[in-house]
Amino acid sequence: MEKFKVTFYPDNKTVEVPKDTTILSAAVSGGIYINSSCGGDGVCGRCKIILKSGKIISQPTGAISLEDRKKNIHLACLSNIQGDIEVEILPESRLSLDGLTPEEIHARIKDIYSEIEEVELAGARAGKDIFNYAPLTTKVYLELPKPTLDDKVSDLERLNRQISRVKNIPPPQTGLANIRQLGELLRDADWKVTVTLGKRESTTEVILVEPGDTSQKNFGFSFDIGTTTITGQLVDLNTKKVIGAKSMYNKQISFGSDIITRIIYAREEEGLERLHLAVVDCMNQIIQELALEHKLDLNDAVSLLAAGNTTMIHLLLSIDPSHIRKEPYVSTADFTPTLKASEIGLRINPRGLLVCVPGVASYVGGDVTSGVLSCGLDREKDLSILIDIGTNGEIVLGNEEFLISCAASAGPAFEGTGVSSGMRAARGAIQKVRIGASDFEVEYDTIGGARARGICGSGYIDIISRLLNVGILSKNGKIKDIKNKRIREGEFGREFILVFKKESDTALDIVINEADIENLKRAKAAIYSATASLIRHMKLDFKDVKKIFIAGGFGTYLDIDNAINIGLLPDLERKRFIFVGNSSLAGARQMLLSCQALARAGGIARKITYFELSVEPGYMEEYMAALFFPHTDLKLFPTVKYKN
Amino acid sequence: MEKFKVTFYPDNKTVEVPKDTTILSAAVSGGIYINSSCGGDGVCGRCKIILKSGKIISQPTGAISLEDRKKNIHLACLSNIQGDIEVEILPESRLSLDGLTPEEIHARIKDIYSEIEEVELAGARAGKDIFNYAPLTTKVYLELPKPTLDDKVSDLERLNRQISRVKNIPPPQTGLANIRQLGELLRDADWKVTVTLGKRESTTEVILVEPGDTSQKNFGFSFDIGTTTITGQLVDLNTKKVIGAKSMYNKQISFGSDIITRIIYAREEEGLERLHLAVVDCMNQIIQELALEHKLDLNDAVSLLAAGNTTMIHLLLSIDPSHIRKEPYVSTADFTPTLKASEIGLRINPRGLLVCVPGVASYVGGDVTSGVLSCGLDREKDLSILIDIGTNGEIVLGNEEFLISCAASAGPAFEGTGVSSGMRAARGAIQKVRIGASDFEVEYDTIGGARARGICGSGYIDIISRLLNVGILSKNGKIKDIKNKRIREGEFGREFILVFKKESDTALDIVINEADIENLKRAKAAIYSATASLIRHMKLDFKDVKKIFIAGGFGTYLDIDNAINIGLLPDLERKRFIFVGNSSLAGARQMLLSCQALARAGGIARKITYFELSVEPGYMEEYMAALFFPHTDLKLFPTVKYKN
Repeated sequence: MEKFKVTFYPDNKTVEVPKDTTILSAAVSGGIYINSSCGGDGVCGRCKIILKSGKIISQPTGAISLEDRKKNIHLACLSNIQGDIEVEILPESRLSLDGLTPEEIHARIKDIYSEIEEVELAGARAGKDIFNYAPLTTKVYLELPKPTLDDKVSDLERLNRQISRVKNIPPPQTGLANIRQLGELLRDADWKVTVTLGKRESTTEVILVEPGDTSQKNFGFSFDIGTTTITGQLVDLNTKKVIGAKSMYNKQISFGSDIITRIIYAREEEGLERLHLAVVDCMNQIIQELALEHKLDLNDAVSLLAAGNTTMIHLLLSIDPSHIRKEPYVSTADFTPTLKASEIGLRINPRGLLVCVPGVASYVGGDVTSGVLSCGLDREKDLSILIDIGTNGEIVLGNEEFLISCAASAGPAFEGTGVSSGMRAARGAIQKVRIGASDFEVEYDTIGGARARGICGSGYIDIISRLLNVGILSKNGKIKDIKNKRIREGEFGREFILVFKKESDTALDIVINEADIENLKRAKAAIYSATASLIRHMKLDFKDVKKIFIAGGFGTYLDIDNAINIGLLPDLERKRFIFVGNSSLAGARQMLLSCQALARAGGIARKITYFELSVEPGYMEEYMAALFFPHTDLKLFPTVKYKN
Repeated sequence: MEKFKVTFYPDNKTVEVPKDTTILSAAVSGGIYINSSCGGDGVCGRCKIILKSGKIISQPTGAISLEDRKKNIHLACLSNIQGDIEVEILPESRLSLDGLTPEEIHARIKDIYSEIEEVELAGARAGKDIFNYAPLTTKVYLELPKPTLDDKVSDLERLNRQISRVKNIPPPQTGLANIRQLGELLRDADWKVTVTLGKRESTTEVILVEPGDTSQKNFGFSFDIGTTTITGQLVDLNTKKVIGAKSMYNKQISFGSDIITRIIYAREEEGLERLHLAVVDCMNQIIQELALEHKLDLNDAVSLLAAGNTTMIHLLLSIDPSHIRKEPYVSTADFTPTLKASEIGLRINPRGLLVCVPGVASYVGGDVTSGVLSCGLDREKDLSILIDIGTNGEIVLGNEEFLISCAASAGPAFEGTGVSSGMRAARGAIQKVRIGASDFEVEYDTIGGARARGICGSGYIDIISRLLNVGILSKNGKIKDIKNKRIREGEFGREFILVFKKESDTALDIVINEADIENLKRAKAAIYSATASLIRHMKLDFKDVKKIFIAGGFGTYLDIDNAINIGLLPDLERKRFIFVGNSSLAGARQMLLSCQALARAGGIARKITYFELSVEPGYMEEYMAALFFPHTDLKLFPTVKYKN
């Protein structure tokens, strides 16, 4: 293989690597540190270098401004080496590693590439098995009677006849590819075969015919495709068990952090294609890692169920989303047909099925339908509410009689992007924090009990709540000028140091600064005010709501007290709150395992009324009033008391 | 474009033609005559040349023996020129054109390329409109209400909602390709569109969405795919009118003249692929010529309905047919799914549908189902029989209560191949013949009233019948040694000259010889004995049969008296016979125009019992007894009297 020399400045170190290696990977192999918090996914935009000489191919990214591009600045993780090159690591991408032992340096550099993280899924707990077990794809072992002069029915009708007998269903549909191989296959297998049956709308379809008995190998994937975070589960469709789950940032982030910027980007040349490939690529990475880890032959994975907001599903299927952001805000399809996963490039069995959960409207998608299904809002007798805290916050109010929803653009702060030490709810993320009232000493728990690498959503909620409680943070989100080793001035306003770099798993202090707090405050205000507006629109009061389901990709943990304390959630009896984690993913798994659940989701999507917040009078006032901790109207938060 | 020199011997003429031109085409362009009766389809094997020098690419053909191949003998029509070459036309492929005017020579040479012939279809007369009009594909013009803030349903659901309203059906299915273009298309078309709806088994599908009102442009093709002859019709699905019809030889003939040799060939390397491409190529030629002639944009052709025997349908769909000829003679699929025509390379609208008529068993295919449907055998109160005279002769006996069928390998003689002056029922074919009792003078009619080019099936029946009547032909099929200008010795036994070359449209005498008569005798014997065996098997008598439907690709004409006279058909009251022409094609058209007819065909295919002739005791004796004119048992043909 062709090899090239890469010289890094200011280190003045040279490494030799194969053609097409990324600059970030070359740096890692040479023990040279370049900052990266996303692990080389092209998402965080931190691994900036200047190309001094030589040839590279850079993948397009929104993380480099046009001005920077003119200066020949590139992301190291997205630049593939095409010849001998010289690069200079930008100051903000370099880090002093003084004071660390060589082993520590080595460990940290290695860690630049965060693997796709295994996630503990609170969502997997939600979604009780209340639906009939009837997975999207079923495997059935059949021993066919051999043809004789008296029983000369054709191979295909012989197979269908046996399926009808065993499963008590009408003859299923079969595609040409399966029919073409049928004659040889049945005879080679001595008429003992396993058929994979799939549901495609109202019909049953023979997806696969395999020789022998492979009925024990029947797997599927369920996915939650978020604007910021993509999470996938591998499910054994026979035992109904979740075998593994992984999560990663949506690579589309490099083209824009929210839905609107992505929709705009989709209209650029090749924009739609790039966004489409980015999400498919993420899903394939999760699929492949789960397969590798659990020794799964991907040919045994024959179905995939995806829940996502409407824009994410449009981009997944490469459908132009542009009308979603133009009045009257209409999507192209809320109910999409069952497809072959391979039609859009997903690498499970090439004949495996892909079902996307039906959505409600442009800004209330299949992830909401799925969440309502899994938390059972549509079956509640009492008035209940589901609050899904994500980049697009979605709220559904209702019970078995009615369902109404709205969406609020909260931004990705609670998913750990756009905040300086943020990360997704993955191994090493600080998810639980206590701050001493007098000494401001910090105790924290991380996901997986690992060394701290950053702060995830639930951690931020705890931190802000505690900073307010102990009097470090003012109600308008400013860090007070208190003399303490943990408080200092920073580039983005005053900051509070949670973990000093010697203790952290990166070479960085883990901090929260005033810019971060501003982002988090806007996110919580968006969600609270949307919820309040929806309640008011229905001429109800928060007190009428008997159950509040809280959903979001928070990992295993969310402190309801703290969420109320910062004004994210309404100040109600604590026992009314039920934390359901990733309810969208939980619902997707239910639908993967039950066509009854899938049909129910269709009913839910049709039942939910969409309430357009942006045209609601008084919504902006609600939002402005919520831009304080906990709120300008303290009567709404009677139990909240901060230390001055 | 690169040009090469081609020198023809013995003429010693040189022409210059572009690379990849066929040698036959080069000859035509240079005014050099090479014999060809199939029109360059690679079927007749008459255009033989020896390559003396230079490079060609020859397509594989069964018409050249291994021995001839070693001698560098090729078919001129299947050899593409790759450089300067020298070729010698074999003596049997050369013709003396002495005595013709230059204009006549020119006209005849031009005529080597028989165009795909327009056919008059007796079959189009059969198949009364007894089924509901409900074509496989329908076009519906829709004016959708534009989306507003109060009516925000997605583009796809908006379309489906309107379809449901207008057509009173549940929301149809739609593929991803249509959904991807929907957003732009609806808006560009100002919400006025035409949808093409297709039936796919039990569901309705949106096949196309087009801007504006295109509902008047709704066309389909129906095809009969025979072992020897392929016939296609262009049908206006709105007016139910047949716009045009064309027929050509099945190019698979060069790989074998009957079903069994094709099945064997299919197992050779690339054999299945070649046979598949050959039939698809024929269909595309017919489609394109009909489109060209009738100024049809092929995007407006959105459905194709094909009837064919089981092997033909396997080869069309590229399904291995090999188990059809292995005991217990089982096909891979008798009921095939609705497909996209483009899936197998048919060039109508890429999203257009292909339906193959369901078959009964390995040797009784969808062509028989279609024939039964169109002649209405399954609705007859009286005992009736359908005799389809083709390369594979099929017989169905029954009425509204039962249907039983068998097949007889008759060979392609009645379709004009394997007989020296044979041609298919196309323009210029002699279809009706009278021979003077004393002077043996010949009067004949040709299809289209054109100059005679050859003899088709109905012509052969007439000729044999008359030769028997006037005492030229003996009962065992020998031409008597009578001194007459029309009777002479030939390479293949004694022969009778019907048309002298000066009157014919080719440069050849049109003759029938003893080898031809032997072939035709075997064909008539196969069909008669199969019919008789089936009647006997059912413990019935010919006299019990009230209606006899005679089908086959005979063009407009078949003389029942003559067919009885030669012993092809049983000697019954003449008024019981009904000539229905190409009943398979007629049924295909009915199904194209009525889903009710298609459903009925499924029922017919399931209802027909298949009777395996080859294992029936006494069948061989029946066949041997029928190898005389009219039969060894003259009591069976009381009305038949030959002159001596």
